[in-house]
Amino acid sequence: MKLYYAPRTCALASHIALEEAGAEYSTVKINFATSEQRSVEYLAINPKGRVPSLVTDRGILTETPAMLAYIAQSFPKAKLAPLEDPFRFAEVQAFNSYLCSTVHVAHAHRMRGYRWVDDPSAIEAMKKKVPETVAACFELIESKMLRGPWVMGETYTICDPYLFTLAQWMEADGVDPARFPKVRDHRNRMSERPAVSKALAAEEG
Amino acid sequence: MKLYYAPRTCALASHIALEEAGAEYSTVKINFATSEQRSVEYLAINPKGRVPSLVTDRGILTETPAMLAYIAQSFPKAKLAPLEDPFRFAEVQAFNSYLCSTVHVAHAHRMRGYRWVDDPSAIEAMKKKVPETVAACFELIESKMLRGPWVMGETYTICDPYLFTLAQWMEADGVDPARFPKVRDHRNRMSERPAVSKALAAEEG
Repeated sequence: MKLYYAPRTCALASHIALEEAGAEYSTVKINFATSEQRSVEYLAINPKGRVPSLVTDRGILTETPAMLAYIAQSFPKAKLAPLEDPFRFAEVQAFNSYLCSTVHVAHAHRMRGYRWVDDPSAIEAMKKKVPETVAACFELIESKMLRGPWVMGETYTICDPYLFTLAQWMEADGVDPARFPKVRDHRNRMSERPAVSKALAAEEG
Repeated sequence: MKLYYAPRTCALASHIALEEAGAEYSTVKINFATSEQRSVEYLAINPKGRVPSLVTDRGILTETPAMLAYIAQSFPKAKLAPLEDPFRFAEVQAFNSYLCSTVHVAHAHRMRGYRWVDDPSAIEAMKKKVPETVAACFELIESKMLRGPWVMGETYTICDPYLFTLAQWMEADGVDPARFPKVRDHRNRMSERPAVSKALAAEEG
């Protein structure tokens, strides 16, 4: 498998999951500074012009929640999701869907407001609300979702690298992690995992 | 199972899927006009204050992509997803994740801009771009994703009710369906299914 990524994006979640799974894979860095994600070559891989993309021998996958579930299903011995229990699996997918469609979207209004508005003053107005909207997401995660020590409780799942990835952005989004001690502790716990260190080092290397 | 919904929301996708699955279920209409989704009673069911929610005998699920996958896995005889093939299943999940995190979000900037900005003039500026951003999503679906006759090709899946649901909003979003003949034909094809008529009639009834 081949993972297309850019550093400090949500691609990190799949990168960590591949490490946790013990997968054989390679990575290709896409350079956002030169808009490589909009190049003809990359659009042939992912017509959305986004990262991540995962090239497999069956075809190409995109969208973090789908990629994470695929990694979990492809490496069942790594036990990265409750594959035998449709309800528990749906809970995992629901958490990851919330990260994808609400938390990531709230964050994106800081740096990518141009996706949804043209007026420069409106883009600036969007940025102002990001600390509030992102904090509201983490408030819900802290109080209602994160069971601890891992997202789903005692068992580590594909929810954990995804939450860790998005929680990396809190400070830049103007959110103080001290307000969310369970999320902060989860981030620290994740940082101690060899798979996380390895994926982070590879992305920054 | 009990589905909490509001008419003309993305809850329709799960409603149709429950019909297609032949599930025994009941529905509860949440009145957005009185902000019932923010009531103490409903927040106890779904602390996000959104629809849909699906109450099962195992617990409560939210997030359309997760609920659709759960319905498909709970009623395997209905063959609503390629459950035996992790790659094909991931393709289904990737399509639904795109609808959830990009298409629905583009649409939401027309009526729910207040989620991401406070300034009234910025909310108006957001509305102006919705026809362009929603059309860009359907352009990608038309040209790269919708295989035909169903989203995944010859086999009907949980992608189909979800696409149908979001495609219902095109006209109100200022997008002309005539620009997207495959999506328009898909919408017509869906309208002929008894499960779709039944779910629509129940929601409007």
